[in-house]
Amino acid sequence: MPAVTYHPVQKITADRHHNGNSLDAIAIEEPLEISLQFTRAGAPVRQTIAVTMRTPGHDADLACGFLFTEGIVSDPGAIAAITVADANHAIVTLKEDCHPHLVNASRHSYMNSSCGVCGKTSIDSIFQQVQPTGDSLSLDAGLLYSLPAALTRKQDIFTATGGLHAAALFECDGEMIAVREDIGRHNALDKTIGFALSQRRLPLSNSILLLSGRACFELIQKAAMAGIKVVAAIGPPSSLAISLAEKPDITLVGFLREQRFNIYTGARRITFDS
Amino acid sequence: MPAVTYHPVQKITADRHHNGNSLDAIAIEEPLEISLQFTRAGAPVRQTIAVTMRTPGHDADLACGFLFTEGIVSDPGAIAAITVADANHAIVTLKEDCHPHLVNASRHSYMNSSCGVCGKTSIDSIFQQVQPTGDSLSLDAGLLYSLPAALTRKQDIFTATGGLHAAALFECDGEMIAVREDIGRHNALDKTIGFALSQRRLPLSNSILLLSGRACFELIQKAAMAGIKVVAAIGPPSSLAISLAEKPDITLVGFLREQRFNIYTGARRITFDS
Repeated sequence: MPAVTYHPVQKITADRHHNGNSLDAIAIEEPLEISLQFTRAGAPVRQTIAVTMRTPGHDADLACGFLFTEGIVSDPGAIAAITVADANHAIVTLKEDCHPHLVNASRHSYMNSSCGVCGKTSIDSIFQQVQPTGDSLSLDAGLLYSLPAALTRKQDIFTATGGLHAAALFECDGEMIAVREDIGRHNALDKTIGFALSQRRLPLSNSILLLSGRACFELIQKAAMAGIKVVAAIGPPSSLAISLAEKPDITLVGFLREQRFNIYTGARRITFDS
Repeated sequence: MPAVTYHPVQKITADRHHNGNSLDAIAIEEPLEISLQFTRAGAPVRQTIAVTMRTPGHDADLACGFLFTEGIVSDPGAIAAITVADANHAIVTLKEDCHPHLVNASRHSYMNSSCGVCGKTSIDSIFQQVQPTGDSLSLDAGLLYSLPAALTRKQDIFTATGGLHAAALFECDGEMIAVREDIGRHNALDKTIGFALSQRRLPLSNSILLLSGRACFELIQKAAMAGIKVVAAIGPPSSLAISLAEKPDITLVGFLREQRFNIYTGARRITFDS
């Protein structure tokens, strides 16, 4: 399914009042239903876990990234197959004797926010699953400066439609591992982490996550679930993002530009060698 | 409760490697629980309808705007009182014999998106409640050009923190009625519509809604619920936003700048007199 569609548009400018109809590239926004198929007491069960509005593309990555970063499927090895049916329905099948943590799906029963949402209890339950791991990751500031330009070079849909959220993963030497775009910022991140998961790259404790916009709490939570230690955002962080980054010891950088950035947490991983 | 907090930050620039610690203004992101209190079979009932991550401020407007634009409380006159308890809990009490449409709250049981989400069935159920009304609203392009600057002049938190979503309502002569900001784009809109509701200004069929960012489907849905006929966004629309604008006959403008904009639907309301 395409990620971009074309719609007739009248482009108005002050010097030419009516430019007539032309076709404008539009980011597609469509629901993806994510279902889990597993066995319970020997019988097959299929259950809808979430419906997310997303830009089509990399739907299998989105489905498995979502299930993992939400703590519903904690072992990527438990996934037997992912099929995308009817364009807008991803079905993730677990291996026999593998069981989802459906309690972590229940936090989606009250939510309505551009940054995701959940009750306090479930935030805590998510973080109990994140094991803080020791790491000796160290990054030069010069490398961070170079990331936004690398992201811009790779953002296909963004360029066409005038702006989508993107999440990119880089090696700690600055090499890009993957970039994914979506109309939902956490969908972009789920797609990126889902890709890494399919490549058996988790935990991502030696990778850098670059976010094209604001760092809000749900993105930090998802990054923490994937073991990411350095999150750099081109936009500002929210207050809750900063608080949540402290707990799993994440380095959180905001307002990243070619020649500047702000460090909110975990400054010890940033060096100024060059 | 404040909307902005201050956090120690190390500001890094290429020419000065380490500027030491300073305090950075951060947009606060905290959960607001929205509960409804009403009577069922003569007995008082209190039910949590949603928990949304929002920037504190105008919480009563947010709560009643949310309940109205989601179709859970369809008559603003049914609201007897709104109290905000414990800073993060808004309780909306309905008058006796007034009943909420709790079926419209159920669409929140599967959602996870920066633009909100819902099943197809519930989208349809929402739109069945929107009565297309005839109108003779006509707007000059020059008036639209002037709106982004008017918004920028009023955006307090945005300036402090480096960017929040905003939703502003204008009279059709360009006078600003209200502007609200939030870390969640639909919270900003719920706050704006909630304010208009508290002022008994609904339906807003002679007002212009200006969105600071992208126009996604949930914002169009909420605008439609409030009877808004002209939605102008500084960012691009999504594909679903365009489709949804067509049904309730909304004029949808995107990429609004000082000297240009694109018209996606309802071009007949835009004139080029001046």
